[in-house]
Amino acid sequence: MSGTGPVRRFVPPRAGAIAADPRSAFRWESVDLLAYKSDAAAPFRDVTRQTLFKRDDLAGELRYFEVAPGGHSTLERHAHVHAVLILRGRGQCLVGDAVHAVGPNDLVTVPPRTWHQFRAAKDAPLGFLCMVDAARDKGELPDDATLETMRQNAFVRAFLDG
Amino acid sequence: MSGTGPVRRFVPPRAGAIAADPRSAFRWESVDLLAYKSDAAAPFRDVTRQTLFKRDDLAGELRYFEVAPGGHSTLERHAHVHAVLILRGRGQCLVGDAVHAVGPNDLVTVPPRTWHQFRAAKDAPLGFLCMVDAARDKGELPDDATLETMRQNAFVRAFLDG
Repeated sequence: MSGTGPVRRFVPPRAGAIAADPRSAFRWESVDLLAYKSDAAAPFRDVTRQTLFKRDDLAGELRYFEVAPGGHSTLERHAHVHAVLILRGRGQCLVGDAVHAVGPNDLVTVPPRTWHQFRAAKDAPLGFLCMVDAARDKGELPDDATLETMRQNAFVRAFLDG
Repeated sequence: MSGTGPVRRFVPPRAGAIAADPRSAFRWESVDLLAYKSDAAAPFRDVTRQTLFKRDDLAGELRYFEVAPGGHSTLERHAHVHAVLILRGRGQCLVGDAVHAVGPNDLVTVPPRTWHQFRAAKDAPLGFLCMVDAARDKGELPDDATLETMRQNAFVRAFLDG
């Protein structure tokens, strides 16, 4: 964000942009659109990441993730907390062993060491702000035994199968 | 937020609620609507505050402020940084010696020790998310000499005079 003024403008999507390209995300001036994960081993689909606020003099970071229609974030857990506000679209999230429908402005807290995943609806993106500590641990992926246990819950299984 | 589940729902304003009461703010389940300032000496008008995320295991806090039409936050500065995303409505913000028009999803960075104020339009509220460090200093108000210097800039003077 160096070299930019105090205000970075939202760039509204052009009419029809989402229909033309389901990966069209909300964008901002002077904010790079990044790949969601640099770790190719973490399974996800059609997710972009934009870092809205990250500064040496801020203890938190605010990121914007957008999951394209039908896509999903990585199923993972970690010690750090996610503080999420849905900004756009709709979908579902898994937090622990419960699946929740979410839409604009809903708040989601992912507590420490809690399995979680976000999925966009088939016909809508799911865009959300996520506040995290700047100093944080990496995510852990479930092993086969953990996944098998999770899938014994029919709601969770239906969620994971999309 | 203790005792609540991971998802706290947005409560959309009823149709006409804003027209009936200009102080009607965006609301969420299990989130208290608070007075903006506890310090009566800090001048402001028609601002509410809601703490969306504040936890012992998060280094940042995420608050939602809503300035009713024609209202304004306190003109102040402090060492801690504000990371702001406009969620609703429109208005203007003063950051240092510049006035910026702002609307939905625009990002505003208030650097350390920078005078700042948010004003809603006459006919629209201005609602914004503000990320701060949980550990932070209190705001400082301008003295008369500082205000006089600020008012020598015609744009700033027009802003301060509403």
